[in-house]
Amino acid sequence: MPAALILIADGTEEMEFTIAYDTLVRAGVQCTSAYVALDAASATPTAPSVARGSRGVNILPDTYLSPQAHTPDKFDLLVVPGGAQGAETLSQSSPVQHLVREFLSSGKYVGMICAGSLAALTAGLPNQPLTSHPSVKSQLEKAFVYSEQPVVVSGKLVTSRGPGTAFPFALTLVELLCGKEKRAEVARPMIFPPGTFE
Amino acid sequence: MPAALILIADGTEEMEFTIAYDTLVRAGVQCTSAYVALDAASATPTAPSVARGSRGVNILPDTYLSPQAHTPDKFDLLVVPGGAQGAETLSQSSPVQHLVREFLSSGKYVGMICAGSLAALTAGLPNQPLTSHPSVKSQLEKAFVYSEQPVVVSGKLVTSRGPGTAFPFALTLVELLCGKEKRAEVARPMIFPPGTFE
Repeated sequence: MPAALILIADGTEEMEFTIAYDTLVRAGVQCTSAYVALDAASATPTAPSVARGSRGVNILPDTYLSPQAHTPDKFDLLVVPGGAQGAETLSQSSPVQHLVREFLSSGKYVGMICAGSLAALTAGLPNQPLTSHPSVKSQLEKAFVYSEQPVVVSGKLVTSRGPGTAFPFALTLVELLCGKEKRAEVARPMIFPPGTFE
Repeated sequence: MPAALILIADGTEEMEFTIAYDTLVRAGVQCTSAYVALDAASATPTAPSVARGSRGVNILPDTYLSPQAHTPDKFDLLVVPGGAQGAETLSQSSPVQHLVREFLSSGKYVGMICAGSLAALTAGLPNQPLTSHPSVKSQLEKAFVYSEQPVVVSGKLVTSRGPGTAFPFALTLVELLCGKEKRAEVARPMIFPPGTFE
């Protein structure tokens, strides 16, 4: 069974987080949500804190991010969601930057959506095709081949634009981890309006 | 500022809950999530419990549902999300059934999505156009004019089909409460792929 590590912080866009987590679980992917504190230098807490989403939905993460426990050999995918303040915390976190590089150098997938794509910049990834929320385009377009496609797959790096592209983003991750048939099987009972996303 | 009461239980579909809450907050609607316990006969607790979503996302509701506090005069909209087990709890709850009837008889909107539409049946609403997740169609099609449109507006009752229709459902609720312009203003920064939902 594939496994995914999905990051979350205060200010994470709760629709992007929840759509990724839920859709991957529907595909049979083992999901772990890991909370990243604003001040990563603080002592490692052991009990998860509630993450307050960008629009006030409070989510209890499965665990805290632990650089010792959350290593690429245990996962097939790392997801960095958006939300302005949450993406700022995640992309400025040096453990997260390290994790992004480690996942990619181990041949594992990394998904970034919305302002979460800032982590591609802060992790120092090489110039390649990428997309993001338009609000952070100006920070990314010099370092990357900026695209306005809903989902951009560049090797193992998968990027997307916002809540409105979160379903195609999550379904693309399902397809990459579990195949086209599983994507169709997961999408069918979600009942997308005809002509969208499937 | 319009206000919405959004119900949640263990087993609620977390994407449907989160998309409704977040999208309404983006429109400036004051949202309150209220937890409904499986055994409504148990004593009224005062601190909110974590609701475990249908795919394992744990959400901390804003409060418990209180028939004394949550009356239609304080809200413009009641939302009943789906998720098989969550919708079972919500639709079988007699305080919820009462609330659905009270909101509608007070001229307030009631939104139901996915298996949440079962609450239309258990609340004893009159025969009218309605949709739901296909998995509960057979329970609803004798009592209602069953539709397979993504979103069905019947007077103040707004119904929808599943996670894949949760964005058009939420945006329709925004339009009904706040107008067409606000709907467009909310949808734009969500960055839906061209041709979908806006």
